[in-house]
Amino acid sequence: MKTNSGRFFEDYHVGQVIEHAVPRTLSGGERALYHALYPARHALYSSDEFAAECGLEVAPLDDLIAFHTVFGKSVPDISLNAVANLGYAEGRWLKPVVAGDTLRSVSEVIGVKQNSNGKSGVVWVRTKGINQFDEEVLEYVRWVMVRKGDLDAPAPEAVIPDLAGNVSVEDLVIPEGLDFLRYNFTLAGEEHRWADYEVGERIDHVDGVTIEDAEHMMATRLWQNTAKVHFDATNRADGKRLIYGGHVISLARALSFNGLANAQMIVALNSGAHANPCFAGDTVRAYSEVLDKAETPAPGVGAIRLRLVAYKDGAPEFALKGEDGKYHPDVLLDLDYWALMPL
Amino acid sequence: MKTNSGRFFEDYHVGQVIEHAVPRTLSGGERALYHALYPARHALYSSDEFAAECGLEVAPLDDLIAFHTVFGKSVPDISLNAVANLGYAEGRWLKPVVAGDTLRSVSEVIGVKQNSNGKSGVVWVRTKGINQFDEEVLEYVRWVMVRKGDLDAPAPEAVIPDLAGNVSVEDLVIPEGLDFLRYNFTLAGEEHRWADYEVGERIDHVDGVTIEDAEHMMATRLWQNTAKVHFDATNRADGKRLIYGGHVISLARALSFNGLANAQMIVALNSGAHANPCFAGDTVRAYSEVLDKAETPAPGVGAIRLRLVAYKDGAPEFALKGEDGKYHPDVLLDLDYWALMPL
Amino acid sequence: MKTNSGRFFEDYHVGQVIEHAVPRTLSGGERALYHALYPARHALYSSDEFAAECGLEVAPLDDLIAFHTVFGKSVPDISLNAVANLGYAEGRWLKPVVAGDTLRSVSEVIGVKQNSNGKSGVVWVRTKGINQFDEEVLEYVRWVMVRKGDLDAPAPEAVIPDLAGNVSVEDLVIPEGLDFLRYNFTLAGEEHRWADYEVGERIDHVDGVTIEDAEHMMATRLWQNTAKVHFDATNRADGKRLIYGGHVISLARALSFNGLANAQMIVALNSGAHANPCFAGDTVRAYSEVLDKAETPAPGVGAIRLRLVAYKDGAPEFALKGEDGKYHPDVLLDLDYWALMPL
Repeated sequence: MKTNSGRFFEDYHVGQVIEHAVPRTLSGGERALYHALYPARHALYSSDEFAAECGLEVAPLDDLIAFHTVFGKSVPDISLNAVANLGYAEGRWLKPVVAGDTLRSVSEVIGVKQNSNGKSGVVWVRTKGINQFDEEVLEYVRWVMVRKGDLDAPAPEAVIPDLAGNVSVEDLVIPEGLDFLRYNFTLAGEEHRWADYEVGERIDHVDGVTIEDAEHMMATRLWQNTAKVHFDATNRADGKRLIYGGHVISLARALSFNGLANAQMIVALNSGAHANPCFAGDTVRAYSEVLDKAETPAPGVGAIRLRLVAYKDGAPEFALKGEDGKYHPDVLLDLDYWALMPL
Repeated sequence: MKTNSGRFFEDYHVGQVIEHAVPRTLSGGERALYHALYPARHALYSSDEFAAECGLEVAPLDDLIAFHTVFGKSVPDISLNAVANLGYAEGRWLKPVVAGDTLRSVSEVIGVKQNSNGKSGVVWVRTKGINQFDEEVLEYVRWVMVRKGDLDAPAPEAVIPDLAGNVSVEDLVIPEGLDFLRYNFTLAGEEHRWADYEVGERIDHVDGVTIEDAEHMMATRLWQNTAKVHFDATNRADGKRLIYGGHVISLARALSFNGLANAQMIVALNSGAHANPCFAGDTVRAYSEVLDKAETPAPGVGAIRLRLVAYKDGAPEFALKGEDGKYHPDVLLDLDYWALMPL
Repeated sequence: MKTNSGRFFEDYHVGQVIEHAVPRTLSGGERALYHALYPARHALYSSDEFAAECGLEVAPLDDLIAFHTVFGKSVPDISLNAVANLGYAEGRWLKPVVAGDTLRSVSEVIGVKQNSNGKSGVVWVRTKGINQFDEEVLEYVRWVMVRKGDLDAPAPEAVIPDLAGNVSVEDLVIPEGLDFLRYNFTLAGEEHRWADYEVGERIDHVDGVTIEDAEHMMATRLWQNTAKVHFDATNRADGKRLIYGGHVISLARALSFNGLANAQMIVALNSGAHANPCFAGDTVRAYSEVLDKAETPAPGVGAIRLRLVAYKDGAPEFALKGEDGKYHPDVLLDLDYWALMPL
């Protein structure tokens, strides 16, 4: 058998290190496509001059380009037979990625637990993105439910990793040289600085975008993510293609510009849930809630912890979960992250 | 309120200068996307070697990339609450934009006039595109009808700017070094030179393109144009997304290659009207009419003034306006511009 | 008549050399779009570092980017009035194309034969792709059936070129410096080396992709291929747009990564047939058959000759031709090529 049928639950064991294939050199082409696929407008990622004023050499590629690239490489090894993408934790951006960088990914299995039905199990992996200088640019934990290939394979000893509920402020990595003292709020698009946001504040990001199949497939392929559910309309009885959860993350993050234009850099992913599936034809909107705020050692740079919720048109205002603790059926994404913002 | 609800008519006053947000560094990625979204083939913009033979250092980005980028930045400040994009005038390309350039936009309000219904008014702005060296690369006037936010706001003193009907030949800016004496007509794709075109001549550009929603949304986002009518299918009762007028401009200009392959550089936008709305599924065709011709001081370089008309499949031949002076319902665009062509 | 109505059968004669218009400088933008449009993952084309380990200066642009670019330029001169694209032969990649290269195309007519119906004929051309240093990067023969414009034009003397059934191993051009001795199979994505493949072996590439109109139109425009059947939904009675055959080639080649991840470089196109038309909505799958194997003088580099078949979802396993010698109606493409693979 020459083709990859993916790993099954029994193929994972704690401590296993998997080097993912197909390193990728990124260029201005990936940025242009990112900006064509999402309404991305954060100035630090759009303008070399703006980035230079903030102490960086050039405008980095959008943080989620790095995330999707690193994530995409892990798909053939981690989630090809996944039933569900269950969660994220301890995600940190460690170094900005710029045009010309080449990224590869490595995952270590840090937990396994067979489900009581004996047909599947949960696998936890810590995935690292590494550049051409062998520097880590990104790391995160994700856990997925994976089918067993051989139902008779014995259940492994359950190992459930002890994961932080959120990345603590001291562990945030501020890009070297970042300095918001000369930050140009006019060019950034909004006047609201870190001090203007209050914990508990919620912001509806106003705009909606109706998604097309051509768009999410182009995006997903761009990250060399090959999960067939995104591309093959014969894969589901209803003929729909399931949209890659990362597409919704990028769309919601880009929409959040309207109200959070100064939440420039994503530095940590505390947790995330793809609450409900998204399909072409859905009109996606987003709101944010300020969860926490902290100062940082970098000049003029504050940190803000945000819940970013994507929802389908028609959901009630600020919809999240029902009284039963389950997500409202129109909620697509519940993401908890830290961003950097001028003080 | 952290989100941008846009300016209303009463928020504009003559002399007001608005610096638009989100400067953008352009790369070969934007060019590749432009050529994927439109059938653009003008050789000067396609080949560094062809451009070098014409006296330029490298192939510039297509003139309409510069236009859309500069225009897109102005949308959140000028046309978010616009009812209609009424016209363009006095547009001039002042310097070619190349990969690596960063563009930002500034607009000055040069006219305001409240409508007699008291509910809206017309705002005229002169918008300039500026590169990372603070050089102007482009300027144009446009006027839009904007809703009043507060119907009780007093009507301002009407100021109607005195705009040129067309840019005069002496005001055309020929890019430094441009020289068409060694122009290669074979590589450019057609043999017809400036001398071969006659004022009054009309050229039907033969080909048609059926537009998809994914395409016009990607194009419009690429210019960071965020007007919701283009993206949100819930915004209109008929569930259609209105196509950005600039998408039709670029499509028509690209189609005009067939018959005007040597009308290489756009140097002025004399006037323009988006005659009727365009939607996905429409098949767009174009014709041109030669309005004027002039010599220029640059070696081998002539100027040609063209009317470019985009229309929907099914329109009568060379359709424009009816006897009532109104545009034929299948006419989408009526654009009047100056281009440079080898003598 | 300023517009190009294309050449008719009687306009071609053996020995005629046609320089095609619109040279094109390629960048990382074209690569990013290629990877967004197709699930392309061959590591040599994805990573500068991987390519450097294989002895190349940087990752070349995917071989089919070069092919489509060179092919696209020939369309206005060769196939605008073509009834059918009949075949390919003697295709060879002569030098990798990298970002920054400018390509142009030249074709020589090497055969003509009027059909017995007197209404059309077959034209054979040898097309060469040439870079900015006047080096040939690619050449291939294709033949097309072209309508006569003037049915009274006399039939030319039939000249049928003597074409090789396949490119012989000695004629394969191995890129200068290519060396697979340090080839990293883990990063490439599969462990199967040249020695692991047997002549006669067939590999079903598992995955399927459902095609959208926006995607194939963007791809086809990117190569400046302007054949109207791909873009204009009013061109056929059924309102469908015929998908450019090259789109199916690229899609099938990209799908073949799953099972042939190490068939890195395409060096020859032995033959090819677009067996049946492809339309948006079709779900495309692919299989390969190993036709031949050969060693090469380059260190660690083997050659493998592959039949790549693209088919529509629903076709029987390994469908190709029926007993009548005709292609199965669900077969889209039958391509025969040589690739380079680590020994």
